[in-house]
Amino acid sequence: MTTVAQAPTFDDAARAEILLALTPDVGPILRTRLLERFASAEAIFAASEASLQEVQGIGPKISRRIIGARHEVQLDAQLAIAREHGLTILLPQWPGYPRSLREIPDPPGVLFVRGAIELADQMAVAIVGTRRATHYGKKQAERLAAGLARAGITVVSGMARGIDGVAHRAAMAAGGRTIAVLASGVLNPFPPEHVKLAEEIEQQGAVLSEAAPTMPPLAGMFPQRNRIISGLTMGTIVVEAADRSGALITARHAMKQGREVFAVPGPVDSPGSSGPHRLLRDGAKLVTCVDDVLEELGPLAEAAPDQRGGNIRIAAEVLLNEIEHAVLQAIEPTGSMLDDVAANCAMPIHRVLATVSVLESRRLVRKVAGNRVARI
Amino acid sequence: MTTVAQAPTFDDAARAEILLALTPDVGPILRTRLLERFASAEAIFAASEASLQEVQGIGPKISRRIIGARHEVQLDAQLAIAREHGLTILLPQWPGYPRSLREIPDPPGVLFVRGAIELADQMAVAIVGTRRATHYGKKQAERLAAGLARAGITVVSGMARGIDGVAHRAAMAAGGRTIAVLASGVLNPFPPEHVKLAEEIEQQGAVLSEAAPTMPPLAGMFPQRNRIISGLTMGTIVVEAADRSGALITARHAMKQGREVFAVPGPVDSPGSSGPHRLLRDGAKLVTCVDDVLEELGPLAEAAPDQRGGNIRIAAEVLLNEIEHAVLQAIEPTGSMLDDVAANCAMPIHRVLATVSVLESRRLVRKVAGNRVARI
Repeated sequence: MTTVAQAPTFDDAARAEILLALTPDVGPILRTRLLERFASAEAIFAASEASLQEVQGIGPKISRRIIGARHEVQLDAQLAIAREHGLTILLPQWPGYPRSLREIPDPPGVLFVRGAIELADQMAVAIVGTRRATHYGKKQAERLAAGLARAGITVVSGMARGIDGVAHRAAMAAGGRTIAVLASGVLNPFPPEHVKLAEEIEQQGAVLSEAAPTMPPLAGMFPQRNRIISGLTMGTIVVEAADRSGALITARHAMKQGREVFAVPGPVDSPGSSGPHRLLRDGAKLVTCVDDVLEELGPLAEAAPDQRGGNIRIAAEVLLNEIEHAVLQAIEPTGSMLDDVAANCAMPIHRVLATVSVLESRRLVRKVAGNRVARI
Repeated sequence: MTTVAQAPTFDDAARAEILLALTPDVGPILRTRLLERFASAEAIFAASEASLQEVQGIGPKISRRIIGARHEVQLDAQLAIAREHGLTILLPQWPGYPRSLREIPDPPGVLFVRGAIELADQMAVAIVGTRRATHYGKKQAERLAAGLARAGITVVSGMARGIDGVAHRAAMAAGGRTIAVLASGVLNPFPPEHVKLAEEIEQQGAVLSEAAPTMPPLAGMFPQRNRIISGLTMGTIVVEAADRSGALITARHAMKQGREVFAVPGPVDSPGSSGPHRLLRDGAKLVTCVDDVLEELGPLAEAAPDQRGGNIRIAAEVLLNEIEHAVLQAIEPTGSMLDDVAANCAMPIHRVLATVSVLESRRLVRKVAGNRVARI
């Protein structure tokens, strides 16, 4: 199930929304305040400079930027370029916009997407880290990304040199999906040596950005970009990171967004492990293998398709063996009779009971009565 | 200030207590119950088999062991050997018996000591780990032991091969003190290749055991010995340890005794780091350097002398610079006037105020009024 096909043209309301999202100096907070005051993006662009300045945080400089946005942003040109390159454009209220991203306090006002975001990408984990990765760090990123990919988890990262690039590549090599979130426009990927990588990712996932498609990489965009990496995922794994680094910013975003933070420990005399060790002191979960991650992840925003033709509500379900999976799929969230489960699975009742005990201990089902069980 | 000199002979009460502590199959719990029932060790050995069996947990087998103890233990021979080798014998209620060890639920009924336990050994930290240490693990044990020793902290360990031995040696090389706790008798050190190490430790600390001086190493004694390692210290650092290992047992003892547990992270693909990582998951403090340890340690059972001629109440005080140290030493636990502190230190009042702020932020002093400050 891929993203809803993009409308070939946009109505005036959508165009105004995209323009607002691309207006320089208007970040998610100001955008929200403006929409609260004027009700629609169209109304914002029709407003006078004086009335714009009634909004807290908007002075002469920003009000002028808003009024000049239509000229400055060159929306028509950007939309034409997007169409020409087959980009998908997503607004927060549209179907196809990732639900987990919609739930963060400051969701991007627009996403430009190369490739496709699928419903299965709800089950996503970020792997991030330093550009100056050690052999050890790369090995761990590779191992975890491959393991997550094999488990059907989409690996999200920032396509930077070092850990990020390794994570994307390992996920794809394992036959899995991966999403790269860029700070620059998706048609202007950074760093330049990853242009080819972006093309590969487009085939096995998506390259996306909230910046206009041809936007060059600006240093100030990177920290802000990181909220999208964590926001797309159930949890963020920091593999190697210096003490002040983008990966730690991503981890802080994940914490604020209520997502899990994982850190891979390493040698205490390796500078790249000081970031993960700091996170571990601050309560991040220690990761040595993929199971450590899957067991910690909470329920999905909505059920996602799994690789075995069922659906997944909690990430740890991908750890189940065939019998456990079959029994789980036969149990309804509203509760099922144990006899019915046994009949549906064509299994003797004692085997169903034993399996339900396992599922209970993994907190995937709960007994609702002596002979009834419900999926959590 | 060394241990109180040992009395050349023991009175009957003391002899009975030592005998009770050495009686096979009578551990700390049974010993406590017996003393509750019979009030003294002498009375226990005068009791009938029938009355001994009135104590919970004592059946015919153990009551016979108690009655046969005087013969089996060969107390006179052991005491003669102890005297001949200049061992110090300590009973829990005697001065010189380590106070931190007296506070654990199951203190040894007797300690045989080669070398000397000093008052400064109250400020002790255990460093323990696997016998099959990696180069990385040994390097960390060495670095931490040396750093602790230089800070005036006594390093306690189990004199095993691997991490333990490295920790003892590094503490001595740094000019510090170290204590080895043996499972065998102190005159029968294990492993055999550490006989020379024991002689060195005796010169710069102590080798001690609750076993009779010539007792051979028995496998069952090692886990029990580990409670003494943690019990002598404010905290235990686990450097490298396999998943089921003696070092983890020491860490669990430390937790139960209310002492700190520290773990050194390492490469996730190194089996020796799986123990520390498990401890970190269970809430152990992550250690990368000595300061990480000192900052976490709570107040000492009683003030200990420091290397600068003052006294120490909280381990983190060894981290202070000269000025901070001088100001701290001028502040009484009952409170001092700031003007008096300034006069005692021959310092301008603004400097005292600034230094007091630092000490306050390190939670070493507290303001008790606008112009009064007290040591914590």
